[in-house]
Amino acid sequence: MATRLNSVPIKTLIEVDPFVPADQQQGVHNRWHPDIPAVATVKPGEVFKVQCVDWTGAQIGNNDTSDDIRDVDLSKVHNLSGPVAVEGAEPGDCLVVDILDVAPFDKMPWGYTGIFELTNGGGLFAQEFQSRAAKAIWDFHGVYATSRHIPGVRFAGVSHPGLIGTAPSQELLDTWNKREKELIDAHPGAVPPVAFPPQAQGAYVGQNIPETVREKIYAEGARTIPGREHGGNCDIKNLSRGSRCYFPVFIKGANLSVGDLHFSQGDGEMSFCGAIEMAGIITFSCSIIKGGVEKLGLKQPIFLPSPVDPLYSSKIIFEGISVDYHGDGKQYNMDATVAYKQAALNAIAYLQKLGYTRQQAYLLLSAAPVESHVGAIVDSPNACVTLALPLGIFEDDILPKATDPVLPFKDRGECALRSDGVREES
Amino acid sequence: MATRLNSVPIKTLIEVDPFVPADQQQGVHNRWHPDIPAVATVKPGEVFKVQCVDWTGAQIGNNDTSDDIRDVDLSKVHNLSGPVAVEGAEPGDCLVVDILDVAPFDKMPWGYTGIFELTNGGGLFAQEFQSRAAKAIWDFHGVYATSRHIPGVRFAGVSHPGLIGTAPSQELLDTWNKREKELIDAHPGAVPPVAFPPQAQGAYVGQNIPETVREKIYAEGARTIPGREHGGNCDIKNLSRGSRCYFPVFIKGANLSVGDLHFSQGDGEMSFCGAIEMAGIITFSCSIIKGGVEKLGLKQPIFLPSPVDPLYSSKIIFEGISVDYHGDGKQYNMDATVAYKQAALNAIAYLQKLGYTRQQAYLLLSAAPVESHVGAIVDSPNACVTLALPLGIFEDDILPKATDPVLPFKDRGECALRSDGVREES
Amino acid sequence: MATRLNSVPIKTLIEVDPFVPADQQQGVHNRWHPDIPAVATVKPGEVFKVQCVDWTGAQIGNNDTSDDIRDVDLSKVHNLSGPVAVEGAEPGDCLVVDILDVAPFDKMPWGYTGIFELTNGGGLFAQEFQSRAAKAIWDFHGVYATSRHIPGVRFAGVSHPGLIGTAPSQELLDTWNKREKELIDAHPGAVPPVAFPPQAQGAYVGQNIPETVREKIYAEGARTIPGREHGGNCDIKNLSRGSRCYFPVFIKGANLSVGDLHFSQGDGEMSFCGAIEMAGIITFSCSIIKGGVEKLGLKQPIFLPSPVDPLYSSKIIFEGISVDYHGDGKQYNMDATVAYKQAALNAIAYLQKLGYTRQQAYLLLSAAPVESHVGAIVDSPNACVTLALPLGIFEDDILPKATDPVLPFKDRGECALRSDGVREES
Amino acid sequence: MATRLNSVPIKTLIEVDPFVPADQQQGVHNRWHPDIPAVATVKPGEVFKVQCVDWTGAQIGNNDTSDDIRDVDLSKVHNLSGPVAVEGAEPGDCLVVDILDVAPFDKMPWGYTGIFELTNGGGLFAQEFQSRAAKAIWDFHGVYATSRHIPGVRFAGVSHPGLIGTAPSQELLDTWNKREKELIDAHPGAVPPVAFPPQAQGAYVGQNIPETVREKIYAEGARTIPGREHGGNCDIKNLSRGSRCYFPVFIKGANLSVGDLHFSQGDGEMSFCGAIEMAGIITFSCSIIKGGVEKLGLKQPIFLPSPVDPLYSSKIIFEGISVDYHGDGKQYNMDATVAYKQAALNAIAYLQKLGYTRQQAYLLLSAAPVESHVGAIVDSPNACVTLALPLGIFEDDILPKATDPVLPFKDRGECALRSDGVREES
Repeated sequence: MATRLNSVPIKTLIEVDPFVPADQQQGVHNRWHPDIPAVATVKPGEVFKVQCVDWTGAQIGNNDTSDDIRDVDLSKVHNLSGPVAVEGAEPGDCLVVDILDVAPFDKMPWGYTGIFELTNGGGLFAQEFQSRAAKAIWDFHGVYATSRHIPGVRFAGVSHPGLIGTAPSQELLDTWNKREKELIDAHPGAVPPVAFPPQAQGAYVGQNIPETVREKIYAEGARTIPGREHGGNCDIKNLSRGSRCYFPVFIKGANLSVGDLHFSQGDGEMSFCGAIEMAGIITFSCSIIKGGVEKLGLKQPIFLPSPVDPLYSSKIIFEGISVDYHGDGKQYNMDATVAYKQAALNAIAYLQKLGYTRQQAYLLLSAAPVESHVGAIVDSPNACVTLALPLGIFEDDILPKATDPVLPFKDRGECALRSDGVREES
Repeated sequence: MATRLNSVPIKTLIEVDPFVPADQQQGVHNRWHPDIPAVATVKPGEVFKVQCVDWTGAQIGNNDTSDDIRDVDLSKVHNLSGPVAVEGAEPGDCLVVDILDVAPFDKMPWGYTGIFELTNGGGLFAQEFQSRAAKAIWDFHGVYATSRHIPGVRFAGVSHPGLIGTAPSQELLDTWNKREKELIDAHPGAVPPVAFPPQAQGAYVGQNIPETVREKIYAEGARTIPGREHGGNCDIKNLSRGSRCYFPVFIKGANLSVGDLHFSQGDGEMSFCGAIEMAGIITFSCSIIKGGVEKLGLKQPIFLPSPVDPLYSSKIIFEGISVDYHGDGKQYNMDATVAYKQAALNAIAYLQKLGYTRQQAYLLLSAAPVESHVGAIVDSPNACVTLALPLGIFEDDILPKATDPVLPFKDRGECALRSDGVREES
Repeated sequence: MATRLNSVPIKTLIEVDPFVPADQQQGVHNRWHPDIPAVATVKPGEVFKVQCVDWTGAQIGNNDTSDDIRDVDLSKVHNLSGPVAVEGAEPGDCLVVDILDVAPFDKMPWGYTGIFELTNGGGLFAQEFQSRAAKAIWDFHGVYATSRHIPGVRFAGVSHPGLIGTAPSQELLDTWNKREKELIDAHPGAVPPVAFPPQAQGAYVGQNIPETVREKIYAEGARTIPGREHGGNCDIKNLSRGSRCYFPVFIKGANLSVGDLHFSQGDGEMSFCGAIEMAGIITFSCSIIKGGVEKLGLKQPIFLPSPVDPLYSSKIIFEGISVDYHGDGKQYNMDATVAYKQAALNAIAYLQKLGYTRQQAYLLLSAAPVESHVGAIVDSPNACVTLALPLGIFEDDILPKATDPVLPFKDRGECALRSDGVREES
Repeated sequence: MATRLNSVPIKTLIEVDPFVPADQQQGVHNRWHPDIPAVATVKPGEVFKVQCVDWTGAQIGNNDTSDDIRDVDLSKVHNLSGPVAVEGAEPGDCLVVDILDVAPFDKMPWGYTGIFELTNGGGLFAQEFQSRAAKAIWDFHGVYATSRHIPGVRFAGVSHPGLIGTAPSQELLDTWNKREKELIDAHPGAVPPVAFPPQAQGAYVGQNIPETVREKIYAEGARTIPGREHGGNCDIKNLSRGSRCYFPVFIKGANLSVGDLHFSQGDGEMSFCGAIEMAGIITFSCSIIKGGVEKLGLKQPIFLPSPVDPLYSSKIIFEGISVDYHGDGKQYNMDATVAYKQAALNAIAYLQKLGYTRQQAYLLLSAAPVESHVGAIVDSPNACVTLALPLGIFEDDILPKATDPVLPFKDRGECALRSDGVREES
């Protein structure tokens, strides 16, 4: 009896249905623009929840083919919940955001990881692998995820929003559009494209707003694919439940938006849709440091990691340098991206020695709590990047043995592939 | 009495004097070449020690100017101890190397971190900062380092060899020289140079060998600056005391060489001579996995990190994307190196708000146990890289406060600079 | 659309209402007895949820007095949900239980920590402090808890069931009752009592069972206060979400029961109701190792801790030895309990130097993720026990400074106390 | 050349020879007494080294029998190096001691762990096992230890001084002697004894001092076996290299003494000489907090653990309660020592299932980085204590498997035993 009194649930500011397409829902938008009105306002210190659809807005199913990945409509992503305004926030302030919790819906205890087609989304190795759609479904069992498509692993998730940020000012938005256009212009016909200009088709603001405002937003609104100075789609796995983040404020109210929740992700999120994508619920509280942009020298968000991020202290670590020795052997000049790719390809090769297919390995490295460090970036001409695979996520002991078999090779099945039988070459 | 029996020190295979120029010492070489004879041979499982000079071979002093950094002769680096052959190792095998200990000489309990001149060594921000020589001396107090040139910090070292590797085969060496020459040819007149071709001047093999062999080694021997497929100068801080490493074997005996010991280093080692450089002693044991290159898919070393690496769980983390917003604002295409630079510049700006000079901040981020992760590398056009600064290394609480002062600004002095008063602009 | 298919929530086997007294609910019992029938049966590998009332069954309120603690009816605790039978489990097997999640009800986002009266519950320092009821209410904000009654701290919870176990066989139950009776008989009139014999008053089995069975259970059923060979009320904080536990099986079906959920707890749970007590939901899956009791030498549960337990690596650690130097100075003989008490009293004294009252300190050490190690237990006559307080849970930097003030003393208010003004002496 | 200048080794204040009996060496003492003069004085902030013999003073050899353990003369232990006075320290101050390093002598790269005879030293299970002497020799390979007497394990050491403390005042010394005498008097004829009164036989002060002073010290000096309010033989493994300790000061100068260095130890050090005992070198610096005893509420030392303590995050954890179910089944009243013993016996039983003998298991749990937590200490009548065994120290995967064999049983040899063939019963 005594317990009922003062038992007040944390309020939910934005509710969505994870089973309904995002563009039929309120409080959801998929472009960055200062003119998108706040759908709710909070006071500093208030605790609140926001619900989010998955980043595609219910386009991907819990099944055993990758056809939905192949056919995904990328003009409609990412679907963000918000904006939420914070009382008293003004340009030049720092918005302190506590990410108090990130969880899936009870009614949807699963997520997915995908390899996108070369011509529809791509991914880090889209060109190298001539990627064809593939997918793994992950089941959530409390803190753990497992996949029928990638057997033999189980890991605790570093759950986080892949995408979170404050609204840009008009000036900042213009800067983004200008600089990205210059890049696009410099790479005509690139497949996959190097960047994505504003595009009215697929744009969405889940609010009743004047049509002229809507048209302006659709015409100018920045696409959500890249992270930028306001945060955005940084896909930093450690911006996780329990972390504290400091964002620059560019417009009055700060206007925080969030989406693209991930149950787990490896550093790099290499297969593009590489995290375990989920719909879910995020819990926040916000506060303000007046004049924080100047006082902290804040050009881009900073954050404090969470004390509850999974700890897997035993790891096997792969190195990579900026020579494409998995490809044509070309020497690059201090290019950490090339180095990252070699480390990843070395890890994929290792996983294949255990019996995983290349696609399974690619998906696993994208989704599991893999860590990738920039080892050295000054030893011309080779940057060195490492990729660390936690040993504790495997059922088997995957360390090399001095006696045969050196590694525990097994038939480990296959991930979800296209129903028409079209496959990439391995 | 009872204790004397069976008290047998671990044997030292290579002895050096850290106070004597490297090119006057035996068992030291500074080029990679298959024809450099092994100076010692060990059995699998044997524990042994190797002494190393600092990477410059006694060129840098414990003083308060940076003149020695300015004038360093880089044709003579890095000075490696070895090679040590392992009985039974053959091309295609995997050499398992346990790095059992890494320690400074008792008689030289200090090290240094340097910013090199734009025209003599450079560093990650050589161009941006128009670098002039600067230096910090670090005193070693057991597991900790402190510096009179960067007050207010103390940290435990992740001690490791910056440079360790097996000898290349002639074929691999030829590949290196060919691909690096192509890069050099593509960047004529670059300052600092993009890569370093073989160069007889400054080359050294601390052994009596036939003159024709010496000439061949000097003419063809690969320079030691970059890491490559055999390991080499990877400057991976976690290849530290207590780690286990798996190297590919390219020639009979494997011929392991090591040098460039670091008391500590941050991920990236950004100021080039960014680690805390030291002379010292490394303890090894080796074993062999026959046919390991094929069985492990080993194109470059892999390793297991050490259980005694320092643990600083509380951190402040800076983000960076592949837009040069600290410079001309240019948008790069998925370039993790540019992203790393922005994260580093954000961290430097933060440290300056605490009262550190830009040079102090640059040196501190290079030397302290900073972690840099590749956050996301698929969100076109922006790669996202993070840089994490451990809070526990600072005397002050450096987290932002909501009330003024937001950060604890203090006069924190200056690092060692040129005695002629020439300074870089800040 | 695609997301609805195959979205199947994890099933809940036992549902309770946290606002209703436990003895009005089904699937709840508060004694251990082999004859309590299973209320549900699961297959090995199945994932399922069980809801639990708080340990008192809704006796304690979210308010600012401790009157409800003073008046609590302890004959009715602990209320356990279950038993759940596992198909195929037989005596002598090992039941493997994965604790996949532990979470509060959304509708009740708070918990409490209490000091019980000397004459009604007691606690570690009941005699020393002549305890009077006190209480702290904790609000749950995602992974964190804070309390208006103990300001200046915030910590991530190591959420776990305080009480979980398999059903005893009749033989084991008889052993328990016999040995505990002997202890009670040896300490006539002890306050608080040294142990609790079976007691029909307050006993409850939330099922329709034959009256003779009920009477037998009430007459013989073991009380739930102590942990025993089957698990039970071990109050081990690291038996937490993400852990895997191995229980001996004593009867067919194993008959697992669970309750007394804790949002957080310090090692020792010293104030008796020292954890942050909550109602909530636990997620399990179970499997069986046939003959595991013999094969593992399993006399009591063993477990593997969770990778998501909070990590606070910086700590201040207090020592204690088995001399009652906070009391009459008496020397005890290798008594780890006395040593633990001194360590705890040392920590309480330190917290008082920060401005916390003795009651606040006692409650905080009980509830926060404090670690207590048995340092040494062979140095006659003094056992040495340590108690480690994580620094990261405090808003202030609580380490000693060399300059005044050595510690940051503040007025830190008061916990909830008796409304009649009766207080313990401090 | 440049490196020689300002290369000043850290000074060594006390030098010993680890191969010579302690009572033939200077700067060594084996009783606690305020009148033992300081052998050196340091300034606050100064870094210095102190050499230590092993705790027995060279009585134990690197061989394959336990005869030296059987015959050890315990009247001569522990041999402490010191005292070292700190300028400015006065009674009531807090002495801050940084333990900067702890390392073995290069010339003696090994240590030992022993089970002592029931009638000569004992240990936690002296009575239960009717202990006979046994021993394991450990070889030090950099950060790791291995033993030919306990194969299949390798672990990084948490190196620390088992014994460190400030000198007692005469008043404190008198208190110790009084309370311990009372305990001895209450347990006449106990085997092993419950405590050790002052004893002139075997006492030693390695200095030239007036004979009357020497006699007083020998007559009154407290034995070194137990830890007390000044620190002393606390055998806390985390008082390790890199930790910072705060000691109460009882006499002018503080007079710090240290000895009983351990390469590694498990929580509890259960076999009495359970740590890996070694001779070696410890590096310190000290500072003072004036009036710190009062300002910190300091009744016994407090400390901050080291960031370089080994991290083994994966563990298997054994529970124990205060019922002697491994013995006569007796119920104890909230006795954490009994609970610790059950947890230890459960772990020993598990290790025996892997093929280790009981003595090997006992020695391993004493020496390896095992953690023991006080789980709960308020659930009358059962205290609950856990003992956590790190998985990463074993060559084999020792987790239970669902299929046979459940555990990897092997012949694992035997530890060093008595040459006369006398054995304890198992």
